[in-house]
Formats: sequence, structure tokens, C-alpha cells
Amino acid sequence: MKLLYPTSVPGLDLQSLKALASLHPYDVKSPIPEEHVDADILVTWSNAPENLKDAAKRLKNLKWIQSLAAGPNDVLGAGFDASKIIITTGVGLHDHPVAEHALGLLLCGARRFFEMRDYQLQSKWPQHLGGSFPRSDFTTLRGSRVLIWGFGSIAKTLAPHLTLLGAEVKGIARSEGVRNGIQVYGEDKLAELLPQTDALVMILPGSAATQNVLNAERLKLLPKHAWLVNVGRGVSVDEDALVDALEKGELAGAALDVFQTEPLPESSRLWKAPNVVISPHAAGGRPVGSADLIASNLQCFLTEKPLRNTI
Amino acid sequence: MKLLYPTSVPGLDLQSLKALASLHPYDVKSPIPEEHVDADILVTWSNAPENLKDAAKRLKNLKWIQSLAAGPNDVLGAGFDASKIIITTGVGLHDHPVAEHALGLLLCGARRFFEMRDYQLQSKWPQHLGGSFPRSDFTTLRGSRVLIWGFGSIAKTLAPHLTLLGAEVKGIARSEGVRNGIQVYGEDKLAELLPQTDALVMILPGSAATQNVLNAERLKLLPKHAWLVNVGRGVSVDEDALVDALEKGELAGAALDVFQTEPLPESSRLWKAPNVVISPHAAGGRPVGSADLIASNLQCFLTEKPLRNTI
Repeated sequence: MKLLYPTSVPGLDLQSLKALASLHPYDVKSPIPEEHVDADILVTWSNAPENLKDAAKRLKNLKWIQSLAAGPNDVLGAGFDASKIIITTGVGLHDHPVAEHALGLLLCGARRFFEMRDYQLQSKWPQHLGGSFPRSDFTTLRGSRVLIWGFGSIAKTLAPHLTLLGAEVKGIARSEGVRNGIQVYGEDKLAELLPQTDALVMILPGSAATQNVLNAERLKLLPKHAWLVNVGRGVSVDEDALVDALEKGELAGAALDVFQTEPLPESSRLWKAPNVVISPHAAGGRPVGSADLIASNLQCFLTEKPLRNTI
Repeated sequence: MKLLYPTSVPGLDLQSLKALASLHPYDVKSPIPEEHVDADILVTWSNAPENLKDAAKRLKNLKWIQSLAAGPNDVLGAGFDASKIIITTGVGLHDHPVAEHALGLLLCGARRFFEMRDYQLQSKWPQHLGGSFPRSDFTTLRGSRVLIWGFGSIAKTLAPHLTLLGAEVKGIARSEGVRNGIQVYGEDKLAELLPQTDALVMILPGSAATQNVLNAERLKLLPKHAWLVNVGRGVSVDEDALVDALEKGELAGAALDVFQTEPLPESSRLWKAPNVVISPHAAGGRPVGSADLIASNLQCFLTEKPLRNTI
């Protein structure tokens, strides 16, 4: 059994699997070397689209692809025969990194670290941000009302951090209920909840159903002092409507890790819009627990048991 | 009984105390108005030094000063007669705000939000910070070793946030022991602990004893990949030694909220030193729970019981 694993995951240690399979590292930015086109198993992480397209054509023996991404859109779009190949995702590997990044972006907004940086670059002390911090409605997580739209495993990981900081957390998801102690409402409650929100955290997947769901109409429902954080997928936010809202002062700020187009084009209005924090899709760039997932799925694969995270 | 309270605390609501004392707001940047020099009680927060010096001379009837600052250096230095006037501090009011800011600064360092900002100002996408984030030894709190030097009430508030993010937290204080589940060591263990530290968080008070305690010698003991966060007092860090260490690459970065001189002079080498985040003493500028402390201490004062936070 031949398993190819990517060199793009820092610190990935698969030594414990040596007895189970023949393990070979590969470069995700180049074609798979000729001596490895007989591989049975391909582990992917941040592969170049050309690498995947090429692999889909040349790796005729492939039986299982373990993507380490939460959403394996790249694998699905590359032309692999999904009727013959098991595809498993890295759902769960990104909960902690993305939750940590979302927390950091929220604090960037509340504590205005981005504005402090602008002053620092001019060797200027931003007195107005220090001492008696000007009171507005989102200068701390404490007592703030955070609404998480897209309440999956990342949200479940993030919520306790916000609660511990003193925030009042609610969720929006397709199905309502109480999850991990957080009240989660259906999307039909959005119009009611958005006006009561100090910070909206979006963690929606990218799909036709989430396209521009945060549109001009919904942005208007948020209080003027509210911040938006997006660590889901860029398609879910109407970026022109967002920039309009920020420029008109209808929204206080936005800390974004994902965009409609990535890398964000130099021509995007977002770069220079007021109170925007641009993070380069950096939230989840480090799958945590990859080796354990690969090991556990390899055991299942070899013993013909159901694998975790199949799509 | 006449109580003067400052207008510098946003949202301070003392209405519940109306029955107990005659309440009068005052401006901390101007002299106390003549009709209020007969005040019995003065609440202070971010008062101008001239305001306090003037009050010390003119408020002859004063019996109690409630400072809302953690350290009432300003009150003590203004010339009030401490033998006749009870002075109480705002110790504890700043635990949550300072802990939140320290958490934000740690995440700024780990997630490099400051570097993202520099790219944003040029409408440039910092690809190297996104996707597969380059692995160095402090890019996440998860699995990182955080040492908190100065383990008082702020540290006790901060530690659970770090633990929840997956950090391994240890403390340094004058007396050792286990506090809130965190192992706290004496300062004699510094030389042993600094080399095992990914992020050093300093929360030391300002005093002769803490002057430049983080000196060149101790900075050298930290790993090259380590970050420093200071939310205590600026006097505790030898700033020239710090800039030297940063410039030589002996330390990865520093996120500082406090400085030897504040505002930080334009001539300071810190502004342009590599991987420095400058925050303008903004961590604690919002006493949380002021009204409750004032109310509880006023009850004690009127009934001649011991007040909280007397110095």
C-alpha cells in the first residue's frame, strides 16, 4: 500500500504508520513523480490546482484521497473519479486554529490594534486609544453581544472563549437548538437578531446557498457600532455592499480573513475602506491533529471499516 | 456627605447612592469648582496632575479618596495628607480589561496582525502569512509555553483564557505555590524557566524593585523565537536592551502596552524596531465594576467599617 503525503504540512510526522504502508513525501506544487503514479492513497494540503488536475489523470491506482482541508473543493474540482475513490476531509482539524484567529480578529477590532499600527508607523502615540478609552459600543468583548452565523464545530470551539471574556453569544444555523450551552436560532430569526448584535462572526461554508447572504439589506440591520468578522468563506459577504456600509458609517468595522477572490485583488475597495482588517486567509492554515486523522483513517481503510469525514 | 465623582469614567452610574450622599460630577482636567471644595469624598480616575495638586490644597474637608486606578501613584504624589485621608484603590477593576488586552497582544504577535496591516496599507496580500502558515515556534497559543511574570489578580484572570487556547501556563511571583491551578515559581527560578518560554507576559507593578528587571542578561535567556508582552509597568523592561535583542534577532518580537516614558517619545528606538507592537497604555483604561466598588466602600465608610483596597 503506497501513501503519498504532502511536504506542505509543517511538522507532519507519520513515522508510526511505517509498518502499515509505504510512505512517500511529495511536493504539492509540482507534478507527482513518475515512480509514484502507482500510489493507492493521496494526502492533500494546499495543493496547486495543476498538481491535482495532473494527479487526477495520472494516478490510476488511487483508492482514497485524504484532504486535510475542511472543504475539499479543490479535490472535487480536479477531475478525480469520485465513484471509485473514497474522499475524506480534514473537518475538525481547523477548529482550534480558526477559532483562535477569529478571537484575534475580534480583539483587533475591539482594541483597535490596526489603528495603533498606523500610528506606530509614523512614530506617533495614539493618545485617543489609551488611558480612558473612548466608550463606544464595541471596545471590549465583555458585555458585548456576539452572533455567530454558521454554528458548526469551529463555532463550538470559539464560543467558550467569548463567553469566558464576558460576551453574550448566540448562534444562527440551519437548525435551531441549544448547542454546547449556546442558543442557536434558525436563519428566519436573522432580522430579529442582527439589530441586537455588537459583533457578527460569520463561519459559513462556500456554496451556492451562501452566496452574498450578508447583503446590503442585512448589513443595514446591524447597529452602526457593530463589527463584522468573517472566517468562513468570502462568497458569503457582498463586498461592495460592505464597503458602502463602512464608508457611510453604517457599520463600525470588518475584520476579514476570506474574500470573494483570493488573493484579494489590488483593485479591491476593501483595502482602503475605513476600519477594515485584511487577513490573508490565514485562520486555518495549519491543520492540527493531521497525523492522528491519517493514522486512524488508514487503519479503517486497511481493515475496510468506515472512514472518518467521508464526503 | 458630599461625594465628587469624575466624568472621565464612561457609563459610571451612581444613582443608587443618591440616598446615601450628595453626588456631584466633576471634570478631572480642571480645578474643582469653588462650590465643591467642601467635599468629603473624592473619586479619581485619570485626573490631570494639576487637578490633583490643586485639590490637595483646596479640599480641606476631604476624608476619603477612592482612586479607580490599580496603583494610586498620582494621588499619593499630589500632596494629600495621607495621615488624615483614607485612600482606597481600584485594584481588581482592571483585571478583565487588562487580561483581554494582553490576550489580544499575544494573538497579535502569534498571528502577526501587525505585519498584515503593513501589507494592507500597500494593498498587498501577504501570501507568506496565509494558507500554510510558516511554522515557527510561536505562531499559535496552542501548545505554546507562556510564562507570566507578576502573578496577581490580572494574571489569575488571564491564565484561563490561555489554558483554554491550549497554552501551557506558568507563573513567576515573589512567593511560589499553586494559584488557580497554575504553578507559580519564585523569582529564583527565572533563569531556569526563561529558556523554556515561548511567550513571556510581564504584569509587574512599577517600583524601585522592578526597575529594569527584564535586562539584557535575562533577555538572552529567552529562546530566539520567543515574544515578550508587557501590560504591567514600563519601568520593568530595559528598553535599550530589548531593542538590541530584537535587532540582533535574539528575540522574535515584543507587544508593549507600557513604557519607561509615556507617551513614548518620538525618538524612541522602539517605534521602528523589528516586530514590535506599540499599544498606548490602553490595556486597562476602563475600570469595570467601579460603581459597585464605590457603593460598597461608601456603605463601609458611612458605617465606619473597614474599606476595600485601602493602601
